Amino acid sequence: MVERGVMPTVSRRVQAIPPSPIRGLVPLAEAAKARGIRVIHLNIGQPDLPPPPGVSAAIAAAASQRPIYTPSRGIPELIAAWVRYYQRVGLSISLEDVVVTGGASEALSLAILATTDPGDHVLVPEPFYAPYLGIFTAAGVELIPVSSPDSYGPVSPEAIRDRISPRTRGILLCSPSNPTGTVYDDVTFQALANLAIEYNLFFYSDETYRELVFSGARAPSALELPGLESHAIVIDSISKRFNACGLRIGALISRNHHVTAAAASLAELRLSLPLVAQLAAVAALDAPETYVAEVITTYRRRRDTMLAALQQIPGVRPIPPAGALYLVAELPVDDAERFAAWLLTDFALAGETLMVAPLSGFYATPGCGHQAIRLALVQPESVLERAASLLATALEIYPGRRA
Amino acid sequence: MVERGVMPTVSRRVQAIPPSPIRGLVPLAEAAKARGIRVIHLNIGQPDLPPPPGVSAAIAAAASQRPIYTPSRGIPELIAAWVRYYQRVGLSISLEDVVVTGGASEALSLAILATTDPGDHVLVPEPFYAPYLGIFTAAGVELIPVSSPDSYGPVSPEAIRDRISPRTRGILLCSPSNPTGTVYDDVTFQALANLAIEYNLFFYSDETYRELVFSGARAPSALELPGLESHAIVIDSISKRFNACGLRIGALISRNHHVTAAAASLAELRLSLPLVAQLAAVAALDAPETYVAEVITTYRRRRDTMLAALQQIPGVRPIPPAGALYLVAELPVDDAERFAAWLLTDFALAGETLMVAPLSGFYATPGCGHQAIRLALVQPESVLERAASLLATALEIYPGRRA
Repeated sequence: MVERGVMPTVSRRVQAIPPSPIRGLVPLAEAAKARGIRVIHLNIGQPDLPPPPGVSAAIAAAASQRPIYTPSRGIPELIAAWVRYYQRVGLSISLEDVVVTGGASEALSLAILATTDPGDHVLVPEPFYAPYLGIFTAAGVELIPVSSPDSYGPVSPEAIRDRISPRTRGILLCSPSNPTGTVYDDVTFQALANLAIEYNLFFYSDETYRELVFSGARAPSALELPGLESHAIVIDSISKRFNACGLRIGALISRNHHVTAAAASLAELRLSLPLVAQLAAVAALDAPETYVAEVITTYRRRRDTMLAALQQIPGVRPIPPAGALYLVAELPVDDAERFAAWLLTDFALAGETLMVAPLSGFYATPGCGHQAIRLALVQPESVLERAASLLATALEIYPGRRA
Repeated sequence: MVERGVMPTVSRRVQAIPPSPIRGLVPLAEAAKARGIRVIHLNIGQPDLPPPPGVSAAIAAAASQRPIYTPSRGIPELIAAWVRYYQRVGLSISLEDVVVTGGASEALSLAILATTDPGDHVLVPEPFYAPYLGIFTAAGVELIPVSSPDSYGPVSPEAIRDRISPRTRGILLCSPSNPTGTVYDDVTFQALANLAIEYNLFFYSDETYRELVFSGARAPSALELPGLESHAIVIDSISKRFNACGLRIGALISRNHHVTAAAASLAELRLSLPLVAQLAAVAALDAPETYVAEVITTYRRRRDTMLAALQQIPGVRPIPPAGALYLVAELPVDDAERFAAWLLTDFALAGETLMVAPLSGFYATPGCGHQAIRLALVQPESVLERAASLLATALEIYPGRRA
């Protein structure tokens, strides 16, 4: 790279994007591995479970197909597969309601670009999935964080109402929540939806984890609330419930066809998604009925195992999740970012350590989340127990331990 | 879809995106096919040639891999494959210069978001690849069109200099050009680069067609111009030279690592690209040396065939392309958009018609391109000859024919 006295500079908008909460830890993990240490990764929500068996066969079958452009909104087979899948979980949508996207990330980007202009505000319960902040920042939109009374549970409709201003364009909910696993009950969900209707706001509903609820019930969907048809924009993904994050397939779903048309015109700018990934996603969505039920059972067992193990550690306060595949735990440390780094730079027990996500990266409000971490339950129970045991030992000797 | 008295509206930015020049014709083509008419598609640049043989095997091999998240900048194997490919065409780049993208489209989106803020200007020779306008509009950036003296050839450095203002952030060039096939000579290319250096602008170089030059020489690359290291941002794609547009793999390449870091932080917001597409792209880039040479030979033959056929048609003025895979032709018609629609709605000869792209969609300046079309040379020579013959007959009977 050539440095010159005068060179054009990168944009203000890109400089405003906050760094990923995990990015700074990655080189530390790499260095630990280079020293021969085994790192147990609980830092990202990358499922360890196998995708539905049809996925592999679909990719193999796609090998003989010519790699051509496909419709920007998604191939008809995949749109139909989304509609079938929604039907199976009790949600009636039509083909015209679906825009296939490159994961939930692109679905949210399209939703925001389609419905907001620079300077607009969107209200988001805090803590929230960290990349939301970058997606909003890149779009010139302000994410207005709203805290819940007990820090991790559902936000109250009153707290949301208090933050609505003339610049507010929508409310973004994620239930079950990444990072907390909070599931909104029907009454609170409807009350928030009513606010969207009353103030004429969009209701962005990130339903990536909708079926991953430990009680066995599905979380409420924005698509089943009366009166919300023009407001609801559902963000969905096959990544988690079908263990297929590497296919990068999601969907934006709305009965407001001004919104789907706007999202489609944005999707045209990237022409199409890869054909092979779309064909594989059809197979994922058409998984046997029992597939997702088994995924839920697996995560429930892991949640129970990890909760029990964490409850044994003095000073640790795990927050029981009702769904999704994460577990937030408060730790008796000076700063969870420092502790997470220390785990990688200074700690090992029998050649092992663990990598966790500091919770501060899931907040927009400065100073929040500095005594908590998010653990992704993406390892078998035996490994989770081992990770909890490592955590217990680490907390005993961590120099920044607090009472 | 439920219409209500009050509903939230889509964004101003999405409403400002111009419709694709072809989108309006698609339903007309579908209706023609429904009437049993065979439509020869010369309207989009979707190659009909097979991808390198390794692509299919790579997809089949990927079927057994778990679909996991991969690095946002691209898997190391694919970054290395880009560097190897560049080496083979005589361009020395390093691994750190590459960000793998979802086609050239995402590469340009990342480049623009990384280097411009809303209200900035970018100068673009006209006519230009139509989606540029939408990508710029979605980013809040103004595309300033600059015409060439002879309408289709290279723009003059003087014309570019005349349009530089304090709001100008860069110059975007596409050589060989879509839609005209114009290849910039070394002297003009360097003169434009010198302007970027003099005025401290970014030099966005869309090199999607760089090797597709009929003379056998490669077009000049922004990566080989002295003094341009901090300014040059190359947009590349495997879509055309490797006939693999459906894999959606491209790259942003720059020796300015502030730019690649900024592009990478934007790429993090969509997490990663599909693993299987990246593995297949490695195989495409590692195609035998003869592969691209054969592609060029094929397009040269098609160009010659089509040029000869069009030159026979009274009133038609084909513009000989020096590269890429398109051919612009001026037609003796009232309006090429109307003519293109008429071909689909009112014309057929022995059950056949053709679909073309009106050139007006490749201009930002109102009133331009209304007597010209772009033909994509993505059919075998015999079909191109048949298409030219259909065009000749159509022009004889088209009611809006002009002298």
